Amino acid sequence: MLSKIKTKFIASLRYKKYRDLHNAYIIEGEKIILELLQQDTHKINILLTTDAWAKTLDKNLITKAYEHILISNIELKKLSSLKSPSKGIAVVNPPNITQDRTDILNSLSLVLDTIQDPGNLGTIIRIANWFGIDRIFCSDNSVDLYNPKVIQASMGAILRTRVFYTDLRTLFSEYQQPGFPIYGTLLNGTSIYKSEILQKGFIIFGNESKGISAELLPFINNKISIPNYPADRKSTESLNVSIAAAIVCAEFRRRTYSAYSK
Amino acid sequence: MLSKIKTKFIASLRYKKYRDLHNAYIIEGEKIILELLQQDTHKINILLTTDAWAKTLDKNLITKAYEHILISNIELKKLSSLKSPSKGIAVVNPPNITQDRTDILNSLSLVLDTIQDPGNLGTIIRIANWFGIDRIFCSDNSVDLYNPKVIQASMGAILRTRVFYTDLRTLFSEYQQPGFPIYGTLLNGTSIYKSEILQKGFIIFGNESKGISAELLPFINNKISIPNYPADRKSTESLNVSIAAAIVCAEFRRRTYSAYSK
Repeated sequence: MLSKIKTKFIASLRYKKYRDLHNAYIIEGEKIILELLQQDTHKINILLTTDAWAKTLDKNLITKAYEHILISNIELKKLSSLKSPSKGIAVVNPPNITQDRTDILNSLSLVLDTIQDPGNLGTIIRIANWFGIDRIFCSDNSVDLYNPKVIQASMGAILRTRVFYTDLRTLFSEYQQPGFPIYGTLLNGTSIYKSEILQKGFIIFGNESKGISAELLPFINNKISIPNYPADRKSTESLNVSIAAAIVCAEFRRRTYSAYSK
Repeated sequence: MLSKIKTKFIASLRYKKYRDLHNAYIIEGEKIILELLQQDTHKINILLTTDAWAKTLDKNLITKAYEHILISNIELKKLSSLKSPSKGIAVVNPPNITQDRTDILNSLSLVLDTIQDPGNLGTIIRIANWFGIDRIFCSDNSVDLYNPKVIQASMGAILRTRVFYTDLRTLFSEYQQPGFPIYGTLLNGTSIYKSEILQKGFIIFGNESKGISAELLPFINNKISIPNYPADRKSTESLNVSIAAAIVCAEFRRRTYSAYSK
């Protein structure tokens, strides 16, 4: 049975203000909650499940939650932000993540400048995860990571990715050094297929309509573009930022595969 | 001034039933309406604009619409399905499109099996357009092309793409012939980077959760997959269908570019 005060607390977590205040956010859905119960980085504060679903779960897993409360389908539906509510909701504390300088200098990170659409951020996290990139830097003014739409679009990948919110100018100043590439995805860069690509560095993607901020451009030492087809035809077309991220990440990793002769 | 009966007619076009009945659909947004006025394939039945916007438009272009009606911002807001309504709405008749067998046999087409999410369909149309693929076949049970969310996500690309709704089994039976590849994007195919790729054929993408229908699998003669990284690691991850379409289309066209040495 869920108390009124807890109902109110959980409902408040729809809003960034209260997520920040309580240092907590909500995760919904059976698959992602199962994954949550099997990891140790995200502390589960409250786990709400239906009785029917709880019976199918391993009891040792459930004890990972600080508190487990059974709720009815009606209560679940009221609290859910999903169109078709699932069988459980978890209140989770964000993990403590730290930046490891050596690790950063030797692997790929994505850098997102002012991404506003939660679907885009979630989709980019999912893409990064697929391509084995587990670190993303977001500018401070990007959409909130714990927005329910971000979590939903990430399809669980949010649990496997370290996302830092930071001032990007400061970040670039700290990591700017010879041999460390800072790639920027732009409309007027070199074709990514003609660019030298290393398996380390920052890959920057810009805002949905404005692209990468002018103040960040001087830090970019590799400007890359995705060519359209037929190449260089004049067009008014563009690609969505998450689509561009998918193509760029795929091409970075393709270089490491033993490729077909062509 | 917009009559009550026309207001009702335009509002009804939010629903597929009435779009089918009237053989008409709605296009919103300044950029796409400007493009609409400059092409000849889509007949514009009614053009609604604010007075302020009409004054900035070329009069010869406006006459392309069968009827031009000035409306207030308040009327526009009422009729709009966008969050931030633009300066105009057009009621458009779908173009007459026909299948050219020779053309189909010598170029790439995308084939979408039971795509349900309008954002995915619109995004895939936009991707196809970027990569110079101007023909898409959708299974009859796919989301409706003229759903406002499809049009919005396509960012104008819908005007430059021929989209056919058809029975895919019949389609494949008609075009199944030696030397004509039917590519299927699957989880258990050959790495796309190790697959031979031609610049012609069908590339099939399946439903968001169920993939390609079992009954269509026998028609596929090239099963392709997008490898994750590190390759072949066990994972519960997946890629959204529009993300997969982006990576696959990019790789098809990459083979035609004079590539970097690697």
